[in-house]
Amino acid sequence: MRAWELQGFSLDELVLVERPVPEPGPREVLVRVLATALNSRDLQVIHDQYDPDQRLPLVPVSDGVGEIVAVGDEVGRVAVEDRVVGAFAQGWIAGERTWERWLTHLGGHRDGLLQEYALLDAEGTVRAPAYLGDAEAAAATSAAATAWQALVVQGGIHAGQTVLVQGTGGVALFALQFARLAGADVIVTSGHEEKLERALALGACAGINYRESADWDERVLELTGGVGVDHVVETAGDLARSLNCLRVGGLVSCVGYLGQLDLDAAGAPDWSYRTGIIPVLVKNARLQGLSAAPRESYEEMYRAMERARLRPPVERVFPFEEAVEALRYLKSGAHFGKVCVAGAAS
Amino acid sequence: MRAWELQGFSLDELVLVERPVPEPGPREVLVRVLATALNSRDLQVIHDQYDPDQRLPLVPVSDGVGEIVAVGDEVGRVAVEDRVVGAFAQGWIAGERTWERWLTHLGGHRDGLLQEYALLDAEGTVRAPAYLGDAEAAAATSAAATAWQALVVQGGIHAGQTVLVQGTGGVALFALQFARLAGADVIVTSGHEEKLERALALGACAGINYRESADWDERVLELTGGVGVDHVVETAGDLARSLNCLRVGGLVSCVGYLGQLDLDAAGAPDWSYRTGIIPVLVKNARLQGLSAAPRESYEEMYRAMERARLRPPVERVFPFEEAVEALRYLKSGAHFGKVCVAGAAS
Amino acid sequence: MRAWELQGFSLDELVLVERPVPEPGPREVLVRVLATALNSRDLQVIHDQYDPDQRLPLVPVSDGVGEIVAVGDEVGRVAVEDRVVGAFAQGWIAGERTWERWLTHLGGHRDGLLQEYALLDAEGTVRAPAYLGDAEAAAATSAAATAWQALVVQGGIHAGQTVLVQGTGGVALFALQFARLAGADVIVTSGHEEKLERALALGACAGINYRESADWDERVLELTGGVGVDHVVETAGDLARSLNCLRVGGLVSCVGYLGQLDLDAAGAPDWSYRTGIIPVLVKNARLQGLSAAPRESYEEMYRAMERARLRPPVERVFPFEEAVEALRYLKSGAHFGKVCVAGAAS
Amino acid sequence: MRAWELQGFSLDELVLVERPVPEPGPREVLVRVLATALNSRDLQVIHDQYDPDQRLPLVPVSDGVGEIVAVGDEVGRVAVEDRVVGAFAQGWIAGERTWERWLTHLGGHRDGLLQEYALLDAEGTVRAPAYLGDAEAAAATSAAATAWQALVVQGGIHAGQTVLVQGTGGVALFALQFARLAGADVIVTSGHEEKLERALALGACAGINYRESADWDERVLELTGGVGVDHVVETAGDLARSLNCLRVGGLVSCVGYLGQLDLDAAGAPDWSYRTGIIPVLVKNARLQGLSAAPRESYEEMYRAMERARLRPPVERVFPFEEAVEALRYLKSGAHFGKVCVAGAAS
Repeated sequence: MRAWELQGFSLDELVLVERPVPEPGPREVLVRVLATALNSRDLQVIHDQYDPDQRLPLVPVSDGVGEIVAVGDEVGRVAVEDRVVGAFAQGWIAGERTWERWLTHLGGHRDGLLQEYALLDAEGTVRAPAYLGDAEAAAATSAAATAWQALVVQGGIHAGQTVLVQGTGGVALFALQFARLAGADVIVTSGHEEKLERALALGACAGINYRESADWDERVLELTGGVGVDHVVETAGDLARSLNCLRVGGLVSCVGYLGQLDLDAAGAPDWSYRTGIIPVLVKNARLQGLSAAPRESYEEMYRAMERARLRPPVERVFPFEEAVEALRYLKSGAHFGKVCVAGAAS
Repeated sequence: MRAWELQGFSLDELVLVERPVPEPGPREVLVRVLATALNSRDLQVIHDQYDPDQRLPLVPVSDGVGEIVAVGDEVGRVAVEDRVVGAFAQGWIAGERTWERWLTHLGGHRDGLLQEYALLDAEGTVRAPAYLGDAEAAAATSAAATAWQALVVQGGIHAGQTVLVQGTGGVALFALQFARLAGADVIVTSGHEEKLERALALGACAGINYRESADWDERVLELTGGVGVDHVVETAGDLARSLNCLRVGGLVSCVGYLGQLDLDAAGAPDWSYRTGIIPVLVKNARLQGLSAAPRESYEEMYRAMERARLRPPVERVFPFEEAVEALRYLKSGAHFGKVCVAGAAS
Repeated sequence: MRAWELQGFSLDELVLVERPVPEPGPREVLVRVLATALNSRDLQVIHDQYDPDQRLPLVPVSDGVGEIVAVGDEVGRVAVEDRVVGAFAQGWIAGERTWERWLTHLGGHRDGLLQEYALLDAEGTVRAPAYLGDAEAAAATSAAATAWQALVVQGGIHAGQTVLVQGTGGVALFALQFARLAGADVIVTSGHEEKLERALALGACAGINYRESADWDERVLELTGGVGVDHVVETAGDLARSLNCLRVGGLVSCVGYLGQLDLDAAGAPDWSYRTGIIPVLVKNARLQGLSAAPRESYEEMYRAMERARLRPPVERVFPFEEAVEALRYLKSGAHFGKVCVAGAAS
Repeated sequence: MRAWELQGFSLDELVLVERPVPEPGPREVLVRVLATALNSRDLQVIHDQYDPDQRLPLVPVSDGVGEIVAVGDEVGRVAVEDRVVGAFAQGWIAGERTWERWLTHLGGHRDGLLQEYALLDAEGTVRAPAYLGDAEAAAATSAAATAWQALVVQGGIHAGQTVLVQGTGGVALFALQFARLAGADVIVTSGHEEKLERALALGACAGINYRESADWDERVLELTGGVGVDHVVETAGDLARSLNCLRVGGLVSCVGYLGQLDLDAAGAPDWSYRTGIIPVLVKNARLQGLSAAPRESYEEMYRAMERARLRPPVERVFPFEEAVEALRYLKSGAHFGKVCVAGAAS
């Protein structure tokens, strides 16, 4: 079978190789990958900015959907022909994120889905909603589950609240959609007018172009009558401003840091992004760091998505052979919605 | 001013009297009542089935909206001309329901709103949403707040869940509307086909006529693929059946008991309604008893209603002089939506 | 190896047989059983009062401790020579109790520990605290975890609260000890004066002999200044009385029902125990049904026990060959503390 | 009566004046102050480092205990001769901290207790535990309630957990005592060996002298077997280090910032203390900012203290006339335990 193998930490060292089709162990399943979806985290892995202990070679990409073609002896949860996604951390089924559970993540600690066939833990799979196409199902995985975990499971979002979503990346757009589903208002920031318009079309009640309003937090305060928002989904921005436009007692979900990392001359990330802590005290703010979600949250999320027939925006689906182009496109930041890659056999 | 005064425990002893307009204390407000809405609890009070220590005479009816015409010296939260509702228990602002807070309820422990002018605690008022008419605002008070408290504040309802609502009484219809607002599915039971149809028109996904399907719990199990519902809003029914169609780990909010009370020959209620407790264990069920909500919950609820422009169904508005007829109509059970009474000056 | 095999639903049909030592699968471990502890649930299983679908033959008894003597290929969490207990439901690691997770319980759905060697899921094991002897470690398993789950994980118990514990069974005594550890006061009921004295010695602040005070709930109200207790651990009693002596907003954990079940002439249990539901509403009570706990809760509980060097009372340890006598002794109800059985090789 | 009046923002402008004894309004009480306890927040107020809108003149100091000598007409909760403390924010009874509730804080927004008699809201008072002396009762107020709120109400602390307490200030020592009461282990940091010894005597399991171990976070990791602590009570330290020694999923309660504020040449505080946010994400950490607590939390806390007969350490009680010396002593940082001031009539 064909697999994209990362042999060194650069996109140039991601190469298409031939590998034997693996056999599932007693509690594993083998899937034929139907589609994958790319995250900025995949680029971080490729550029060695994710895990200091990352080993190579590696098949990258955590998110995707596949059809089960073989199951181990003890597998009862799922069956051949089921169309399933793999939870980001295969061993994280329920409960809190522990290191033990975390160190099972696809396309990092284990081989990911950018290959023709892939092994998954039976317990680490979830049936994909039937109404979603392959690319959509691939798209609605770890970024979606992170947004669901932040807003619904740990955030207790409800009708009447207001959520600030920063940018239009993967987690941000799912946060927008899930907040709307919960009856909440959403304010979106972006540096691109056309992305703001698409966010409004997805249900945002207001968009703020931070290139035009550098003090976007003041704009958020205006929009909320001086009160501030109940929830910030902090994906890329400036925590000081997020805290400034948070209501007293509000919640900031820290799910990303892209905008905060500068690369030094050698291309290494600068981890020193810092923020003031006084506002946490003054605002009685709550902050929570999140990364993906347990399998249980995927199941709950799919129940909600299925009933609402919620469709994730997919920007573009690249052929399997053009996975490197897809990753470069993601890197360009031009997209609105997920960048996907078709399965090898498509 | 005119006031309906309960002088003995029967509808025949509810009489229209003349009373002096009261003066607000330093932290009180005087409102001109614009509309009231009736609850079965008001009938219980009138028939001495609510509080063994109920004193008379009493101006009944807890729910209503009024315009502030005078405020005490220390009042800052609200002002003359504000249109406000009174929280059911005037002294319950936030936190748990304690006896101390509870023993401030309108139309029971204190005089209620079935009068031309009424006193309220400034802290116990909430501004009514401007988009609602007077009768609608009167309708969206304690029954609404009970449903909000049960599903949102204490129930953590979210998209993808399924709620069972029993009947089409006040709390039931608000539960239906708030569950829909949260992205949840709703199954409604009723003994009247036309009420089921109106419930479906309000957004219920299924209706069960318990006169036709006595084992309605089995129908609920079928509708949920054998899993059961996440939440039951138990208002009048049979807890054994509610537990039977609850999912493992699900929640039953006990908010009413009308259907469970038989009257003995002397007209006294039979409080011995009993249910099996084994299913609580087997299902790992959770139960919570609720009665109304703190003022904070009203405010949060109005935020949600206002954004969704959610309108409570109002069945009929009786003139102030016909309050007794309105209560008789409520008693008949023929209504779908709230039965309201106009203010004296309307 | 030797194993106690239940061949029919009576203690007379529990017989000592010879079985081959099983081989662990890739994610299983084989333990040499060092000690087991008996629960009334084991008697229910033996008398066919637990699960209508119970299959035979069965090795009964869920609770015990063993030394790992072999591990499967993929096992990393534990190792040979580790002394471990098995979680009651082997597949319930974290999260809510689902049927899927529940149907892995030892000594019921799977063979239990009343045998010389037993297989456990590696994920379903927890290292036993080193300071506990074998019988103590066997004792501190599912009854302990149920009490921990009820009071700490789902009950949020804290210093200054008061807990009512019914009787002196397994869950009851652990509830007493854990409540004390949390800084809470404990009131215990029992029909035996000497058991009350032992409960006081374990830290209870008051004991009520329900043979002397049939209206023990009124005594509880007196002891709490008329307020009622914050938490009832309902194991065997009368829910109507439990609700009567609960504070407004208090929590009842339903974990057992022994006292509520009568056997009919044919020896079948009468499941019709019923209670009034009105008090749930009036008291704004919360009820939660519980059965055992996920593996995560065992780990947390052992951390707490280990630091406090908390020792569970063990009434008596029977030799392996006298397991039937041990079960009969448990049935007699004469014990205070756990009734244990030594491992076959002891 | 005599009162200490702050007439300008320095200790030199805190002067003893004569004022008329005030009259309680209908819902107020007049107390004769028996003792007050000082907090670093009182120094911040005095030096204009607390609230940019602080108005003068002001009677400072929020914490204290008094005997009720007169009550308003509508007061039922408390009575003359009751010994009560005043909640820090007089209008914050229950629920979240809102601005409206916050802007009722004693010794800041309203006159405080450094006077012979003081007015309190009846709703804002709590009866002091009888077993505590006056200085102890004064000591066990806002600092205690903050620690209780952080660990118990919002932190869900339980037996088996480990808490890191920074320094030996007011909140820190109460956090130590409450954590011990809950069955948790406590690690304390300090720059003074003798303070560490006194913390150990109060029940801490380990002390770290940060003057000797600058990388005290690494010491904490060692002490917790590399896992990290469950909870940090962040009062004065370095959030980056706190996050480093937090377990995955742990909680940091931000309750103070003294150590983080440098004063510039003009004596103005430097609010720019900043910390890295990446660790929040990597650790899935939770942070919560806290300031004091609602009245409800005081009541719950006193229930717990009373049963455990927990005594707060009081370092020294200054005569009323030496209040300025007391504040200077507090400023010196030499104390371990609360610095108190006797009532004017003592």
